[in-house]
Amino acid sequence: MRRKPSSLCLPLLAVLLTAAAEPKTALPPNEIVAMAQPGDWVDIAPDDLLVMTLTPASKGKPRRIVIQLMPAPFSAGWVDNIRLLARAHWYDGIAVVRVQDNYVVQWGDPHGEDAKKAKPLPPGLKMMTERDYVYPRSLPVDARLGTLLRPRNDVSHFAGFTEGFSFEGDGTPDSVRNWPVHCYGMVGVGRNLSPDTGTGAELYTVIGHAPRQLDRNIALAGRIIEGMEHLASLPRGTGEIGFYKTPQERTPIRSIRLASDLPAAEQPHVQYLDTGSDFFMRYADARANRRDPFFITPAGGADICNIPVPIRRKP
Amino acid sequence: MRRKPSSLCLPLLAVLLTAAAEPKTALPPNEIVAMAQPGDWVDIAPDDLLVMTLTPASKGKPRRIVIQLMPAPFSAGWVDNIRLLARAHWYDGIAVVRVQDNYVVQWGDPHGEDAKKAKPLPPGLKMMTERDYVYPRSLPVDARLGTLLRPRNDVSHFAGFTEGFSFEGDGTPDSVRNWPVHCYGMVGVGRNLSPDTGTGAELYTVIGHAPRQLDRNIALAGRIIEGMEHLASLPRGTGEIGFYKTPQERTPIRSIRLASDLPAAEQPHVQYLDTGSDFFMRYADARANRRDPFFITPAGGADICNIPVPIRRKP
Repeated sequence: MRRKPSSLCLPLLAVLLTAAAEPKTALPPNEIVAMAQPGDWVDIAPDDLLVMTLTPASKGKPRRIVIQLMPAPFSAGWVDNIRLLARAHWYDGIAVVRVQDNYVVQWGDPHGEDAKKAKPLPPGLKMMTERDYVYPRSLPVDARLGTLLRPRNDVSHFAGFTEGFSFEGDGTPDSVRNWPVHCYGMVGVGRNLSPDTGTGAELYTVIGHAPRQLDRNIALAGRIIEGMEHLASLPRGTGEIGFYKTPQERTPIRSIRLASDLPAAEQPHVQYLDTGSDFFMRYADARANRRDPFFITPAGGADICNIPVPIRRKP
Repeated sequence: MRRKPSSLCLPLLAVLLTAAAEPKTALPPNEIVAMAQPGDWVDIAPDDLLVMTLTPASKGKPRRIVIQLMPAPFSAGWVDNIRLLARAHWYDGIAVVRVQDNYVVQWGDPHGEDAKKAKPLPPGLKMMTERDYVYPRSLPVDARLGTLLRPRNDVSHFAGFTEGFSFEGDGTPDSVRNWPVHCYGMVGVGRNLSPDTGTGAELYTVIGHAPRQLDRNIALAGRIIEGMEHLASLPRGTGEIGFYKTPQERTPIRSIRLASDLPAAEQPHVQYLDTGSDFFMRYADARANRRDPFFITPAGGADICNIPVPIRRKP
């Protein structure tokens, strides 16, 4: 007579069967993303996309950069200004003026500091304050992220994702604050010394290890989702903190346009992976704990800037 | 009659006096480093320095890169191999074969994967194993770092500095392990699938946000301390994972030499700031909590990769 397995044996058997059925290694993050279903991808509205065109590279190769603007509630005043400046074609003819290795690429009016020669700004720009660097209310944080992030999320300090962007926050039961984070490729608003918070006429992007000391000290307004390589590979500046010493070294910007202002055929159609989807969580887990064949020891956690939100052209 | 201040009042008075004497803002990290004394700087031995010379840039501009090799106990076998390859002039004529944005620049023998065309390796190279990715004993961690780092140091997971390099570790009271970390500019040893751990003939450096998933999965052998901009600004690769599709796109490497093998006049004399010095700790604190005039809200902590060990030419 066969002995009926005891209740202790059953779970053990289940564990053994699972172990046998599971492959020794798991998928890399990009293959998990490739398995996501059409409903897991979110269209980015043409009003939330900027197309920035540099002068062509040395061999006439075009250099086009696509920026996703940050969704409300974050930085709404600066983002409104950037839309206004793009619609006024104000950015046309400005230049990349600064490239500091492992820090930022910055573009703006080369004569912006000279009251006589500065390009006049269009009317209607909003003035923001340092209070606008943080959003003073709670945003949902997916509990599944808690064990993936380093540092771990807790009630007083946490990080998460919202509408394709990462954010960090802190709080007490009575008061919660959130703010966007300076990861590689994020786009921010240049400013002078406080109380100036910048208009949006001068922008920068991060080309190195996340300079998180800038969080809550300067406004972030979006992130580069295509063409980052055209900025990150520019020659580093020859002067102090990476500013170019001579006008000849600068890279001219032909135009920056809202995608919604471009002819239909030139509009990019881009989607981000829904950060609340199961595929995003599997992707985040794979970024935090690589188990694909190249890897031996999973890291046990990832910095939020090591989990960039996946992007694709709409199929 | 004047009342003698009570013992409660005295410390309060001291606090008020300190607050009055202290400027409203503090020095930025680089100004703290500039104040360090000659005895706070440590010479890097010429046997621990590699000088890598690329072919000149388009306008004949020289491109020279200086690499500090990792001190024992870390990665000693791979570092020995790199010295052997440099002394044999094996690296001369290889090329930068891969540039993947926000990840790595990699150099090696373009025909390394082709048994018939691969450049023969010199005899005497050591074979290492995956066990050599970690150092199985305790290294001292300065207690002053505990509150500056994010994540915070605790007994089971910590980070620190030793001889100009950052490391991470974990442990229990009976077993402590340490390993070097993949920060921007770190130099590692390319490898194929495990159990291969690489010889040191193929190297890479990090050109983006620290890919910490590589820690304990691949050997680190040094860090770039001069000329990083020559590698980080190279055009990104046109093929899969950033490999160049055509030989013409590669950047040739003229030579990689140990500084000790160069004529005296060509040897770089470089120093790092002693990571146990008070000035280093003040610098680390300033990186973790910027209080200089541009900043409004100190971050409250820094990732270890946001505290690069300062370097200077020996005065």
